[in-house]
Amino acid sequence: MGYVSSAALVPAVLAGDERAIARMLSRAESASAEARDALDTMFAKAGRAHVVGITGVPGSGKSTLVAKLAAAVRASGRTIGIVAVDPSSPYSGGAILGDRIRMTDLGGDRGVFVRSMATRGALGGLAGGTLESVDVLDAAGFDVVVIETVGVGQDEVEVARAAHTTVVVSAPGLGDDIQAIKAGVLEIADIHVVSKCDKPDADRTVADLKTMLAIGLATGHRRAWHPPVVPVTALRDEGVAVLLEAIDRHREALQTSGEMAVRRRDIAERRLLRAGEEMLRERFAQHRDGQIAALLDELVQRRRSPRACARTLLQTLRIGE
Amino acid sequence: MGYVSSAALVPAVLAGDERAIARMLSRAESASAEARDALDTMFAKAGRAHVVGITGVPGSGKSTLVAKLAAAVRASGRTIGIVAVDPSSPYSGGAILGDRIRMTDLGGDRGVFVRSMATRGALGGLAGGTLESVDVLDAAGFDVVVIETVGVGQDEVEVARAAHTTVVVSAPGLGDDIQAIKAGVLEIADIHVVSKCDKPDADRTVADLKTMLAIGLATGHRRAWHPPVVPVTALRDEGVAVLLEAIDRHREALQTSGEMAVRRRDIAERRLLRAGEEMLRERFAQHRDGQIAALLDELVQRRRSPRACARTLLQTLRIGE
Repeated sequence: MGYVSSAALVPAVLAGDERAIARMLSRAESASAEARDALDTMFAKAGRAHVVGITGVPGSGKSTLVAKLAAAVRASGRTIGIVAVDPSSPYSGGAILGDRIRMTDLGGDRGVFVRSMATRGALGGLAGGTLESVDVLDAAGFDVVVIETVGVGQDEVEVARAAHTTVVVSAPGLGDDIQAIKAGVLEIADIHVVSKCDKPDADRTVADLKTMLAIGLATGHRRAWHPPVVPVTALRDEGVAVLLEAIDRHREALQTSGEMAVRRRDIAERRLLRAGEEMLRERFAQHRDGQIAALLDELVQRRRSPRACARTLLQTLRIGE
Repeated sequence: MGYVSSAALVPAVLAGDERAIARMLSRAESASAEARDALDTMFAKAGRAHVVGITGVPGSGKSTLVAKLAAAVRASGRTIGIVAVDPSSPYSGGAILGDRIRMTDLGGDRGVFVRSMATRGALGGLAGGTLESVDVLDAAGFDVVVIETVGVGQDEVEVARAAHTTVVVSAPGLGDDIQAIKAGVLEIADIHVVSKCDKPDADRTVADLKTMLAIGLATGHRRAWHPPVVPVTALRDEGVAVLLEAIDRHREALQTSGEMAVRRRDIAERRLLRAGEEMLRERFAQHRDGQIAALLDELVQRRRSPRACARTLLQTLRIGE
């Protein structure tokens, strides 16, 4: 099968064709200009899936958990698409989850689609392709779309916040450094999972989390939804059904309370701002050798401040359009 | 001592007054509008310090290393300012490094200044304050300014790339997940440190790094500077002097090869783009309830794509100026 234009792929993707989906995801990931209109169509056709962000520190066993969750979703009669965002380099290629899934019973099941995304070099661009990949899987008809991220950097947190339901995975026995970092993502959790609950200190981790949540509630962060703490031992399939139940309950709560509309608007706001920033970066790259070069000279020589130069930059970039 | 305007603090900061520096750093961190002109002056007066980024995964022993490096810099007759960026939440407050330094011989030494920066909630804003804090310490006359970050997210990588010399810290015995993430920051290293070299598998970590570097060279990433791998056991002060020597050698190599000018321009470019993005976010926040609300409606209803809305957004935000 030779090259197929993105426009020509659209009907096949909407019909759920696996190879077409894979190709469209590649184009979302590479941010190919040729695919822009097709991806806009994906965006327009999306909006039906329940988008679940699953994030946690390295070593928390996210990938195994996601594989088991996928099996549980399938057992409930629904389909699931997974976008695994791996901030590691080309060395590892981010294919870990894919491999793990293939090793399980789910290999060959057309109701599960897994995509591991590499980052584009050390800098940026990650989230854009991720959100568009979610659109593709959503438009292709998957009932649940999971975004799996490593919950440590700002970008990962932001991707997780693109979800309707965010699951934060903690594991017992990780070092203090790691637990401290994890604290930064605690507040975004709709559901907490403590993984690897066959480990001896799992009870303490569950208790610690409950205490932190209680403190949060006591200081005024009272909400209609109280994030549950779900202990899971993914390797033994313990707790996975409870997790899926919690995810489904959260979705229901979002709809019943009217919070879903608030969340959709919040997601749209982040996405709009992100698209604006991407467009700014594109125009910056286009004009780098032109008017921007003179601005950079002033900045290197510290003759004008970054803010003053940025003001000129925004004015300059208007011209480009 | 009551409130002092940022403008009034400037001369004291430039004279190296500790309390004035601390106050100015607080204003850089909170991005106070009142401090903008003063921070612009800081930027204008900066440019003399050697800026060293030190990054590594959680658990790699960065903070201990930085404390020991600070002692070595002092022993060489120079002064050092440290900005430690901690992506953890208000729970931990990011004060770990400060406490650790105070526990060492350096407490009370006016040639060392340590600032731990918390992030502003779960989202964004981190890097702007960081770069301005580096300006403050640079303008205050510190010879070496260290930015310590956790090298896992894009933001951390970007902050590290604001440095003249970037040190990436690896540690033996961390899990595969963590090592995989680390791979993403390997390519930005000017110097590699393997910390905790009293551990049994340290030799393997050193060998692995050298192999990865050799592969990098073999695939065409040849540069004038070959990143050394420095084994360190910070708790026993072993290797710290070698690290400082490598940092000094790198600075010299940057200057001799003309690469320093290239790097300064690269740093300015990133900074300009970042300032532009910040300004975009500010204007976005200012107009959120106005014209942007209608755009968001269209996006929530998927009537127009994020890119199409972003184009309108950039046009809309021009009006604000």
